[in-house]
Amino acid sequence: ETLSSGDERTARPRNGKAREKTLTMETLNPQVKAVEYAVRGPIVIKAGEIERILQEGGKKPFTEVIKANIGDAHAMGQQPITFLRQVVALCTFPELLDSPSFPEDAKRRAQRILQGCGGRSLGSYSASQGVDCIRQDIAAYIEQRDQGVPSNWENIFLTTGASDGIVSILRLLVSGEGRARTGVMIPIPQYPLYSAAIAELGAVQVNYYLDEDNCWALDVHELHRAYQAAKQHCQPRVLCIINPGNPTGQVQSKKCIEDVLHFAYEENLFVMADEVYQENVYAPDCEFHSFKKVLYEMGPEYFNSVELASFHSTSKGYTGECGFRGGFMEIVNLDPEVKAQLVKLLSVRLCPPVAGQAAMDVIVNPPQPDEPSFAQFHKEKASVLGALADKAKLTEQILSAVPGIKCNPVQGAMYAFPQIFIPPRAVEEAKALGMQPDMLYCLRLLEETGICVVPGSGFGQREGTYHFRYVYLNFLDGSRMILGSSSHSNAKV
Amino acid sequence: ETLSSGDERTARPRNGKAREKTLTMETLNPQVKAVEYAVRGPIVIKAGEIERILQEGGKKPFTEVIKANIGDAHAMGQQPITFLRQVVALCTFPELLDSPSFPEDAKRRAQRILQGCGGRSLGSYSASQGVDCIRQDIAAYIEQRDQGVPSNWENIFLTTGASDGIVSILRLLVSGEGRARTGVMIPIPQYPLYSAAIAELGAVQVNYYLDEDNCWALDVHELHRAYQAAKQHCQPRVLCIINPGNPTGQVQSKKCIEDVLHFAYEENLFVMADEVYQENVYAPDCEFHSFKKVLYEMGPEYFNSVELASFHSTSKGYTGECGFRGGFMEIVNLDPEVKAQLVKLLSVRLCPPVAGQAAMDVIVNPPQPDEPSFAQFHKEKASVLGALADKAKLTEQILSAVPGIKCNPVQGAMYAFPQIFIPPRAVEEAKALGMQPDMLYCLRLLEETGICVVPGSGFGQREGTYHFRYVYLNFLDGSRMILGSSSHSNAKV
Repeated sequence: ETLSSGDERTARPRNGKAREKTLTMETLNPQVKAVEYAVRGPIVIKAGEIERILQEGGKKPFTEVIKANIGDAHAMGQQPITFLRQVVALCTFPELLDSPSFPEDAKRRAQRILQGCGGRSLGSYSASQGVDCIRQDIAAYIEQRDQGVPSNWENIFLTTGASDGIVSILRLLVSGEGRARTGVMIPIPQYPLYSAAIAELGAVQVNYYLDEDNCWALDVHELHRAYQAAKQHCQPRVLCIINPGNPTGQVQSKKCIEDVLHFAYEENLFVMADEVYQENVYAPDCEFHSFKKVLYEMGPEYFNSVELASFHSTSKGYTGECGFRGGFMEIVNLDPEVKAQLVKLLSVRLCPPVAGQAAMDVIVNPPQPDEPSFAQFHKEKASVLGALADKAKLTEQILSAVPGIKCNPVQGAMYAFPQIFIPPRAVEEAKALGMQPDMLYCLRLLEETGICVVPGSGFGQREGTYHFRYVYLNFLDGSRMILGSSSHSNAKV
Repeated sequence: ETLSSGDERTARPRNGKAREKTLTMETLNPQVKAVEYAVRGPIVIKAGEIERILQEGGKKPFTEVIKANIGDAHAMGQQPITFLRQVVALCTFPELLDSPSFPEDAKRRAQRILQGCGGRSLGSYSASQGVDCIRQDIAAYIEQRDQGVPSNWENIFLTTGASDGIVSILRLLVSGEGRARTGVMIPIPQYPLYSAAIAELGAVQVNYYLDEDNCWALDVHELHRAYQAAKQHCQPRVLCIINPGNPTGQVQSKKCIEDVLHFAYEENLFVMADEVYQENVYAPDCEFHSFKKVLYEMGPEYFNSVELASFHSTSKGYTGECGFRGGFMEIVNLDPEVKAQLVKLLSVRLCPPVAGQAAMDVIVNPPQPDEPSFAQFHKEKASVLGALADKAKLTEQILSAVPGIKCNPVQGAMYAFPQIFIPPRAVEEAKALGMQPDMLYCLRLLEETGICVVPGSGFGQREGTYHFRYVYLNFLDGSRMILGSSSHSNAKV
């Protein structure tokens, strides 16, 4: 006796046989099925399995797995900034405001944040856009960062990490069917949040390729090419930029940003500037320029018309506070009615985590020279950023020294995206296993050295080239990388 | 000189004229446009305006606005549970682990949580499903709550508040086109997260009506009626239940839950049980029964087949920690491949806020009788729940005493959903203003008394009936409600 045939979803149980499931791979939302997110994909699952084997006393050619797959600073041993944690702890447990072991400037920050919270508690919902005084602090920070370019706090929205803001803005922008469907231009290589969100929302992904031969620069001619090609089958309406780049670690020049903004102006594109690595610039000849500041300097015709959303986060920079899920976005030139729709949409999820909002506030309102925590704060900040700069340099050197690997200069962010040359026989082997060649490479690297990196195919790359993303938050990786490579190099870190 | 005509989205600027916007109400995602969320809707915006007028010294018939629109306990003056805040503060600033002013049991909790975090820091990303040891604590809590019904920690997912979990599960379930499109059965009245998520995902909302004449009970015959009617135009695949009820405050009987689960079994529906008010049961003749426990007691044929997701939160109960955005879901009988897809989907957003996860851990792993914080914890918990029970009773009494208002017994949650009788002339007046009659009522109530409640039309109600949702976290409301009503009653609180 079996289930009634026909439509499985209406099948009824018979004689105690197991009921068909309602939710199967066949009935699953196809847009969910289409989502890919390599940063936590099969390599990372495999790394977890190896970690368990090691914990249970199993033998491997190494004693620990090095997770170079994700920009998770504290997990790699980076210490939190003391002042930030003091402020958040004071907000969490206000009885500590009476404790002599907390500095006065931390107490002042905490009291100000709590005054912005309902019932003076982190446990209240904030407004959907975030706590007003934190939004005001963010606007003041942006004005200072951008040397006086005005920022209106009512255009600031706190978010649950930057990811939440990015997906919310994309959600607004997806509409139309067939050739009128929204196309979203993203860099290749990209951070796979973008491709995942585009798949989930059913938008059209429009790839523009960064120029690997030119240190992963964005070439505006490539934007034109990608745009014109996409116009044949969709309506490109959004241009996403990641600067400094993830996974590519490049920092865009001011001239390049101007070109991009001019292109967006001409083609009427909504610009999404992912600027979460704005503090992470290490190369001496590079500087962070915000898209908003460059837009301002292009004159009022541009500054008053190009729709721009910029994203920031507590997770990167020198704080690395990923777990707090803090972030914000600034949105300029958004249609006021659309802005009301955005507030409505965000209000359904009530508010971003308030402890994360408090952490964000410390980043935009750090201790001032006349305050007691100033010296320690800046010492800690400089130490983190200095170590990251050293690691960026070392990563570039070590990867360049490994035969079969070619690495561009690492200018910023937390990543290198070296090209790897995979012999044709290895490519054949991977294909026989139904696997991308760089996936096979990364699996082997993990199994032989314990280093966990994400294959370039998870970020996108030009056909026939192979890469991996290497997160250089950890110092130990260089020597193992060389040991694990097919080379005979004796270089050590 | 004007913009070129034709397709606005490709119009180019001419002679310095303002460029057309890319994102307008015309190009906005229509599914976003369709979203409604009354809990933070026009009444609440109006309340904010009145608050500003009062702050600036303006005159109103009252001195403060009472926000009875949202279950935001701390904003209404409820105090946090000391032990919970101690644990989260210790996790946030581990130097406090050396402080003699924190109790040992709070330190033990914090150390355990930190051991589950990468780099022993709340600032690390957790696994997408949450911190393992917190998931284990949750499973142990559920087993105890359900008197031994087994709970597997690998079926527990931490979430960003319950809302995040609910939307994630709905996202999996939406598929098909036309008559095969997923129908989602929701109670009317409902918490508007459901209708908002259904609109955003483009699913089909299938209403079943709770029985107001029978204390808002769920009648399984009404489920059958709604299901059969919906089958004509969609494929109902999901049944959402809110127990204890929001906005209706009823508590479902065990018999009723059995009937519902039998119906879901027969019709192959995925059951989503919103059980965030499981600690908020006040009526002496009522008890909380989890859907999972009842399913277990119905026997293995049911327990091993009905797909069930249950949701919980730090925001309600006796903790009221809304701002931490903590929550979890337990999912049983989910197809293993679909579960992997869910993990993938959640991984795109990286992880729920870790401080919220820590708060959740305290709720499921409170001080034990032999621990130093036991007495204070239970005193605080009893005080909050006792006050809520008193307010529930008082709310029912006061609302019943107001002419023109009829209120069912308030058995649980934090809400009453009284029916209001609006005279035909007022209904006409509202219609002339293009407004729902209950919206007009609530606006008038706000303007005359400062009490901010949400009209029933934001939750759904039977055609021709009018209600509002009243959140009874605040004691002050009764007398004003009566003063503000059109009656001549002299009742006072």
